[in-house]
Amino acid sequence: MKTIAENRCFGGTQGVYSHASKACGTEMTFGLFLPEEAATGPVPVLWFLSGLTCTHENAMIKAGAQGWAAEQGIAVVFPDTSPRGEGVANDEAYDLGQGAGFYVNATQDPWAPHFQMWDYISAELPDLIGAKFALDMDRQAITGHSMGGHGALTLAMGLPGRFRSVSAFAPICHPTRSDWGRKQFTAYLGADEAAWAAHDATLLMQKNGFDGPVLIDTGTADQFGDLLGTEHLAAAMAARRQDGVLRLQKGYDHSYFFIATFMEDHIDFHAQALYA
Amino acid sequence: MKTIAENRCFGGTQGVYSHASKACGTEMTFGLFLPEEAATGPVPVLWFLSGLTCTHENAMIKAGAQGWAAEQGIAVVFPDTSPRGEGVANDEAYDLGQGAGFYVNATQDPWAPHFQMWDYISAELPDLIGAKFALDMDRQAITGHSMGGHGALTLAMGLPGRFRSVSAFAPICHPTRSDWGRKQFTAYLGADEAAWAAHDATLLMQKNGFDGPVLIDTGTADQFGDLLGTEHLAAAMAARRQDGVLRLQKGYDHSYFFIATFMEDHIDFHAQALYA
Repeated sequence: MKTIAENRCFGGTQGVYSHASKACGTEMTFGLFLPEEAATGPVPVLWFLSGLTCTHENAMIKAGAQGWAAEQGIAVVFPDTSPRGEGVANDEAYDLGQGAGFYVNATQDPWAPHFQMWDYISAELPDLIGAKFALDMDRQAITGHSMGGHGALTLAMGLPGRFRSVSAFAPICHPTRSDWGRKQFTAYLGADEAAWAAHDATLLMQKNGFDGPVLIDTGTADQFGDLLGTEHLAAAMAARRQDGVLRLQKGYDHSYFFIATFMEDHIDFHAQALYA
Repeated sequence: MKTIAENRCFGGTQGVYSHASKACGTEMTFGLFLPEEAATGPVPVLWFLSGLTCTHENAMIKAGAQGWAAEQGIAVVFPDTSPRGEGVANDEAYDLGQGAGFYVNATQDPWAPHFQMWDYISAELPDLIGAKFALDMDRQAITGHSMGGHGALTLAMGLPGRFRSVSAFAPICHPTRSDWGRKQFTAYLGADEAAWAAHDATLLMQKNGFDGPVLIDTGTADQFGDLLGTEHLAAAMAARRQDGVLRLQKGYDHSYFFIATFMEDHIDFHAQALYA
């Protein structure tokens, strides 16, 4: 593991690190905020999964998470959204290939050799950070934005017992019925839609739900509202009486200004579950 | 004036606007955060002047100011750091020309035709925003980072009565004695150092000080510490018994992580003066 940068931040450290990933077969970069408390013992961990076109850096510099995480004594991990670099397949579109991993293990060429983001986020990266940093991996929570909100919800419901709470900012809720999903799942997972179901938050909510609290914020002025399919997840949550809150935030759009506005609420929400 | 973007943010609006500047003879872009209260009446204004290489955008997306400004009901203006574009002089170095206006009116070629940042920030832009938005221009405060901290301090002391309070994050404190200053003042203002004195915070502090409170934060691990010359301003503040606080923040560097960490303190400091 290499240290790219470490900056003092809200009494703790905002680090950026890279490592040779076995899952993705390439060098991967991630950000990690460690609060002051990590100097004296393991701290709980919140994952922040980012959206289309983002690297590890966007949320790290724009979401305003560190101040609230410092207040709660929680670490925040900011993974990249895909493998990258020479020799890694890509597509000209912004919503496929590098920067658009969709948190799945690709089974189809040319993606399969590197696009193993499910394994990377669910196994390899937690193993690495759990070994290298003062993190309490028995106390994890997860959130994300847009494609990363999809990732947070599907990982939380797909790995029962792993995360104590899940939240999302403007998540893609029903990708098997959206242009943000069908195209990518076809490319990464193939035409057989049976393979897609494990990566659709609405279908997972209908099937099993989440054993813990759920918080979702989406803006009423989200310019990608039709692609998100929030209504499907809302119906599924209500139908199964899922412990959860879905807030439609008046006038907010899909930007990081929206995320920053509600970050305090999300971190407080996760802190309550992590310290319960 | 053109609206480039408006995003809902902490109950208010983060806008980006451009206009044809008479002072700079080119199109200029600025960011403006308006809190919710601006919908019902004029609100106080905090200026944030940015550092070398920055546009209006860096602080707007990375400094985390909007949440605290919203809490205090204060607007925040994020001007650009220089004129830009085709036909505007530039230099290959990051610290001269576009992105490096140093908040002075250039008298020397090739800079004089466009680099009139003092006039732009002290007269043209306040006139414009005071006319177009619900801002109480009798209640203004100013802050900034690095070169923008230099700008904030020199404008505050150079325009007595204009600003109720001034603060700075890692400001350039004594540019007439620093490589961040001598090179640029020679280029913009000419070799006669008498013309430089009005743009040196330490000299202004020695001469007149500031009629209001001053807050300065600089990191002990600032990688540009020698260029900032903090010790000179510290001595000048102490010598004249200036109402003010200079904090050397242990372990912090020159980055926006440092700025974000102490933004709440700065906005609270200005709010106290603006609402006094």
